[in-house]
Amino acid sequence: MFKNGASSGLQIDLYELTMAAGYFQNDVRLTAGFELICHSMPPSRNFLVACGLQQALDYVLNLSFSPQDIACLKALPVFKNVGGGFFDYLKTFTFSGHIWAMPEGEIFFARQPVLHVEAPIIEAQILETCLLAIMNIEIMVATKAVRLVQAAVSDGKQRSIIDFGARRAHGPQAGVLAARAAYIGGADGTSNVLAGQKFGIPVYGTMAHSWVEAFDREEEAFGRFHRVFPRDTTLLIDTYDTLRAADMITGLAIRKQIKGVRLDSGNLAALSKRVRKTLDGAGLNSVRIMASGNLNEEKILDLVRQKAPIDAFGVGTELAASPDAPSLDMTYKLVQTKGQEGVRFKAKKSPRKQTLPGQKQVFRITDNKGRISKDVIGLIHESPPPQGRALLHQVVKGGRMVRPLPPIEESRRYLQKCLKQFPEVEGKRPLIPLCCSPALLKLAAL
Amino acid sequence: MFKNGASSGLQIDLYELTMAAGYFQNDVRLTAGFELICHSMPPSRNFLVACGLQQALDYVLNLSFSPQDIACLKALPVFKNVGGGFFDYLKTFTFSGHIWAMPEGEIFFARQPVLHVEAPIIEAQILETCLLAIMNIEIMVATKAVRLVQAAVSDGKQRSIIDFGARRAHGPQAGVLAARAAYIGGADGTSNVLAGQKFGIPVYGTMAHSWVEAFDREEEAFGRFHRVFPRDTTLLIDTYDTLRAADMITGLAIRKQIKGVRLDSGNLAALSKRVRKTLDGAGLNSVRIMASGNLNEEKILDLVRQKAPIDAFGVGTELAASPDAPSLDMTYKLVQTKGQEGVRFKAKKSPRKQTLPGQKQVFRITDNKGRISKDVIGLIHESPPPQGRALLHQVVKGGRMVRPLPPIEESRRYLQKCLKQFPEVEGKRPLIPLCCSPALLKLAAL
Repeated sequence: MFKNGASSGLQIDLYELTMAAGYFQNDVRLTAGFELICHSMPPSRNFLVACGLQQALDYVLNLSFSPQDIACLKALPVFKNVGGGFFDYLKTFTFSGHIWAMPEGEIFFARQPVLHVEAPIIEAQILETCLLAIMNIEIMVATKAVRLVQAAVSDGKQRSIIDFGARRAHGPQAGVLAARAAYIGGADGTSNVLAGQKFGIPVYGTMAHSWVEAFDREEEAFGRFHRVFPRDTTLLIDTYDTLRAADMITGLAIRKQIKGVRLDSGNLAALSKRVRKTLDGAGLNSVRIMASGNLNEEKILDLVRQKAPIDAFGVGTELAASPDAPSLDMTYKLVQTKGQEGVRFKAKKSPRKQTLPGQKQVFRITDNKGRISKDVIGLIHESPPPQGRALLHQVVKGGRMVRPLPPIEESRRYLQKCLKQFPEVEGKRPLIPLCCSPALLKLAAL
Repeated sequence: MFKNGASSGLQIDLYELTMAAGYFQNDVRLTAGFELICHSMPPSRNFLVACGLQQALDYVLNLSFSPQDIACLKALPVFKNVGGGFFDYLKTFTFSGHIWAMPEGEIFFARQPVLHVEAPIIEAQILETCLLAIMNIEIMVATKAVRLVQAAVSDGKQRSIIDFGARRAHGPQAGVLAARAAYIGGADGTSNVLAGQKFGIPVYGTMAHSWVEAFDREEEAFGRFHRVFPRDTTLLIDTYDTLRAADMITGLAIRKQIKGVRLDSGNLAALSKRVRKTLDGAGLNSVRIMASGNLNEEKILDLVRQKAPIDAFGVGTELAASPDAPSLDMTYKLVQTKGQEGVRFKAKKSPRKQTLPGQKQVFRITDNKGRISKDVIGLIHESPPPQGRALLHQVVKGGRMVRPLPPIEESRRYLQKCLKQFPEVEGKRPLIPLCCSPALLKLAAL
């Protein structure tokens, strides 16, 4: 996403750069600790999935300012009094700090740092805008994907969610980021070719109504497609009349090679049952039924409850834009500085925006059955409590990756493992008690 | 956004490319007409603002497939039976068709084409995913910006909306697109430096809480910032205690050079009144008050009603992610084909997804006072009805821009002109009657 030169150092809020210049001109040489947290949960979510770390680190470790970027900044009136030294500094900008983060696929909750940056204050500050923007969309979509997948398999049967969101994402890049997050969240693939290429995600596609309409007869449209894609023929059958199209298919010479049909409108429960019956009646039991069309977790749950014989759901808008929680209350907050005068702990006291000071660790405590019983936020160097594991790990040291991040498949599996530790009780996830360690409380009281 | 190589030809749905290969292999040489429409309005919107045309055309006119893109496609199992001719075609892909569009800043409604593409069917089809993704976010955000601006000036006084959304947008690119759309929609500037540079939008910034916390005393933090930015000092005063900070400012030596203060938390109505009083009491009448912190149009309207002395509102999440309408029901539909057998008109009959056939024009009829009285959807070559003007104009002819698009400032002004034609009645915009011309109705009935 960022390595290929697509990013500009200027893709950030102006104040990151004015503050950077301010620190530079005032010769402030502090090492700052910033943490990325979600202040409060969206009302419609009771957990979040850590996601976006790969893109966040790509951004951080490749961030630089081109001569063109610097010329643009110099031309801004606000930098009029800023000397050339700051721009020379930007010219050679490279991140030299440390980063701790939860692995992708980890489950977390409000007020828990998902990422911590420790670096010279200018470096740490400049990262704010893009770290938030990247993690915001990937966490949001990965979490949404979990909900959709759980709805799809709510009766215990395997069914796929496929990301169809590229067209409804907030711009082309958002579609690629969303496809990745959806896959980590449990979707089985995406329609987005670039996401497939960049991240090794299985890519799926069917046909559009326009294909069917481009030919004079539906039958011809189906046959022409099959000729070119004999092993990948999923026919869109709702352009004119779904049931008539299903009937027609059973009479086609190519019927045995059809992989699937897609329903994109109408009463999907009723139609899928009748289409299944028609197909089965003609011995086409292996033809899969895919459904799409403004699906969300409630509609999918309802289809599963109605025993609609649907094998895969294509989800667009609701996955890529997460309309019931289209943003997260994520912030990037200064929690400590280190300077000649030692460590200073920092906390914000603004109403409803209070933060806890110091570099933290999140400990997850499990019961004897391996289920999450409690989370404890402590300080980074505290030892884990009994049956507790630390969720944040150092991923960058002195500007370099400590080790490569796990492949996307591993993050995907890791999430499933985490979800098993966090079981539903009567269809709902219990609230996990969250507390602070005595050491953190002591620091916060200072 | 796209010209600088940031885009890949693969940033699209797989089915665009399988259909393209399907048309190629079947030697389908139709010229297709596709239109971009919003099927239905979001419940919380009663008009939409055309926006994103510049980025859409940048995309279309610069779309190509790199050798790397093509190698990736060839490696996908789905293309196994597709011959080399198709990939040779993609190698030299360039858009050769025509595009008609509403100008940016035009007001439009559901079921009205905002853009129409006529091109060889492969070219027209391939554009679908990105045209939708680009126009979707820009239309969404421009429309949201209008609402925010109208709330800010609802008592007739001038107040600014500044886009602070980069961190809450769906990824870095979405932040840049949103900043542009917000500006066209009436915002007075953005915090996003790249958007400022690319589009010539005024860039604004203040300081973060982290700046204030990085120094031992708030007073020092303010003084240090002013030293570097003597003419651009807007002080964030809610880190510890808003009223105490306001009081402290009135005693600073630099008090006369302070441009503004920003309130980011608490009861903004009450705080802004008390801060204003404190400042005015010290003769600091020229210091502007900016407010931010999860603001939306309702909260801004309420602040204006309460006569909060706020001069500018910084809006982040609610502008860039438009949470009350985070996606639009936009589709890109085939409406006609031209081939050896002449013109064929196309329409989809899927339940609740019906479309009207043929290349259309939208005529806006105004009354004697210049106010919109009715919209008529007709066919492209119909003459405008009396007092009606055509909203769609040809912008691309044979793969080339007919003329440069207007500068962003002109689109911004054009929107204001359009809004004047569409006045509010008792604080609400009337529903504009929409009908089809007899010629279109006749075609649809075929």
